[in-house]
Amino acid sequence: MRAGPSQEEIRRHNLGALLRSVHVSGAVSRAELTASLGLNRSTIGALTAELAAAGLVTEETPRDRGRAGRPSLVVRPESYQVYVLAFAIEADRLTAARVGLGGLILDRRETSRPPGEASPAEVVAPLAEFARQMARATPRHARLIGSAVATNPVVRGRNGLLRPGASGGGADTSRAPFASALTQALADALARTGSPGGAGRPPALVSRGCADLAALAEYTRGAATGRASVIYLHGDGGVDGSVITGGRQLTGQDGTGGQIGHMVVNPAGQPCGCGSRGCWETEIGEYALLSAAGRPANSGRTGVAAVINAASHGDTRAQAALHQVGEWLGFGVANLVTIFNPEMVLFGGTLRDVYLASTAQVGRRLTRAGSPERRSGLRLRTATLGEDGVLLGAAELAFERLLSDPLTDPAI
Amino acid sequence: MRAGPSQEEIRRHNLGALLRSVHVSGAVSRAELTASLGLNRSTIGALTAELAAAGLVTEETPRDRGRAGRPSLVVRPESYQVYVLAFAIEADRLTAARVGLGGLILDRRETSRPPGEASPAEVVAPLAEFARQMARATPRHARLIGSAVATNPVVRGRNGLLRPGASGGGADTSRAPFASALTQALADALARTGSPGGAGRPPALVSRGCADLAALAEYTRGAATGRASVIYLHGDGGVDGSVITGGRQLTGQDGTGGQIGHMVVNPAGQPCGCGSRGCWETEIGEYALLSAAGRPANSGRTGVAAVINAASHGDTRAQAALHQVGEWLGFGVANLVTIFNPEMVLFGGTLRDVYLASTAQVGRRLTRAGSPERRSGLRLRTATLGEDGVLLGAAELAFERLLSDPLTDPAI
Repeated sequence: MRAGPSQEEIRRHNLGALLRSVHVSGAVSRAELTASLGLNRSTIGALTAELAAAGLVTEETPRDRGRAGRPSLVVRPESYQVYVLAFAIEADRLTAARVGLGGLILDRRETSRPPGEASPAEVVAPLAEFARQMARATPRHARLIGSAVATNPVVRGRNGLLRPGASGGGADTSRAPFASALTQALADALARTGSPGGAGRPPALVSRGCADLAALAEYTRGAATGRASVIYLHGDGGVDGSVITGGRQLTGQDGTGGQIGHMVVNPAGQPCGCGSRGCWETEIGEYALLSAAGRPANSGRTGVAAVINAASHGDTRAQAALHQVGEWLGFGVANLVTIFNPEMVLFGGTLRDVYLASTAQVGRRLTRAGSPERRSGLRLRTATLGEDGVLLGAAELAFERLLSDPLTDPAI
Repeated sequence: MRAGPSQEEIRRHNLGALLRSVHVSGAVSRAELTASLGLNRSTIGALTAELAAAGLVTEETPRDRGRAGRPSLVVRPESYQVYVLAFAIEADRLTAARVGLGGLILDRRETSRPPGEASPAEVVAPLAEFARQMARATPRHARLIGSAVATNPVVRGRNGLLRPGASGGGADTSRAPFASALTQALADALARTGSPGGAGRPPALVSRGCADLAALAEYTRGAATGRASVIYLHGDGGVDGSVITGGRQLTGQDGTGGQIGHMVVNPAGQPCGCGSRGCWETEIGEYALLSAAGRPANSGRTGVAAVINAASHGDTRAQAALHQVGEWLGFGVANLVTIFNPEMVLFGGTLRDVYLASTAQVGRRLTRAGSPERRSGLRLRTATLGEDGVLLGAAELAFERLLSDPLTDPAI
């Protein structure tokens, strides 16, 4: 039990709260900041001045709104001056972006990759090349204040090859191989193109799982904004998820909490890569859908889209595959709703389209699961940040350090 | 996003933090408070003086410890002067206690009740009588600062009768009937014996579910003390639970989160009272164990103890019943560990003894559930507050208002 904060801690907290408001809103008037932060006008003015002096925000007089009285100054993030690099290693593609404060995508690159095992170099080289290309296109005075990569713990297969995109892992899983290789490649890439961070070195690359980051993005500026309890389900090869309760992401004791793709739903089901049997992933993952539909089991998001399209055009095998997955999708969602009583269940990645194709079916399964009071107020929704959710989540993670303590960032 | 707290808010926070330390520890030196709260000695001295002036703590010089130098004063809660009334409505018994600040049970009453439906009056009358008896035995100057009742949402059956102890509920469930009847009965009982609260009226009776309160007690002063992520499982007729993540109880959007007894583990299983089928409760609840062992299905905690005893003395039918329940217990625990990645799983109520009788079996099921990294550091333990866990949790709930803001309590 800690005592209350000191004056200096409060000032820092307030600076962070103000910058976060501006980052999330894109632009916000001083009057709105006064109301939302519960601080008086002079304090807001002083905090804004500090952030402006540090080059993090600008203030401007809004265009005439046809109302009497002096308009409240509008505070904007310096989106073109302060940026992060975000990377995402997904099951079947690699993406990178330069994202400005405020969540603005300034530059974006993507390449597909064959699902399956790969060496760290095969995965990291294209991302490092993206970083080089983006660094060359970056204005001279813009400041890099952080970088992050979305990558799931990878399974170490035979010959030291790694399989990204797998969730749940096996005995030898780690997020480290890609993150550390990328850290090195990034340093080399940026050194060759001249440090875009200006003075100091940017803070080290940070990493977290794809589902957690997509959920973070949806919570910050997507479908789950302001929701304190959310279950986010993410299809990307396998099935992963992220749970927000009480406004915070559930991490468990060592960061592996929320592996909801590996709850066992079918005790008589198929063996799973994680060593268990009948995991939810074995029933609703891309492989389950694609195999049941008689398609190549690793055709990724393109394959999933093709099955859904075929089903909607009368392909009975695709319809049956989708129906089977829809049943288990509804079954698992019902269990999670019983356990978590969330405000919202959000479907992202390839589960977004699977859910859209089986909405009524999932609804029926939920109804059959008893106790309607558990579902009062529950919303089932699809992720609104679409294909870029994971990448935007990585950007949010990269901004986190600056937002939690704006004036002590080394690159500022 | 709120701004930081004011000076007055910080002072109140610090008073609460200090009183909470003393309440949890029973007695703690000023030196320890200085260290644990991160405040300087003079601030601790001033805060302690305020709490002492309000009659909430006392200070005393410790007995000579054979060390040089002036010993640090010891701060103690006024356990005999400041108390709450705690009540628990469990499936097969009713309990009440007068509990002093610091968690000291000063007086305790219990009566058994036949499991099954009852009218509010049948349940509330014995508790009100306990309150009267305890009020008569309470010293004149002691102050009642709160009261709470542990009661699950009840199912409204035929003829307006209610079934306490059921978890998961049906369409028409509420915690209100018992709590409101008890509020009225309590006011009458205390008025007749003279207000033990001295000056002001004590704050209104508050209520929460039995599993949540037993978990709160274990987290405050039992097996889960200081653990940030805990799954607490509670057997009491049915099966209920409470999940602590990030140091906070998972409540869900409307307080019905953590109904882990109603996650479906066996899609081909029995219908459950909640309207679903194959819920965990139908596989590991008391009814499942007692029926499989060929005993009266509503013999409650006595019946469960008898089955376990018979099994340990070679009764093969009891052994088979216990084995079957142990399998499903391990299966469900493995799923929850996958979902939550907790530091600890804690077995309480009648599941305490069931777990002790099937520890090795539950361990084997966990091992078969794959991914050992999810279980690294995981501890399986039994509740240490034993039979009084629920009652002590109700007391903690009743103290909460005082602890969060010590000097504005109306009865102080």
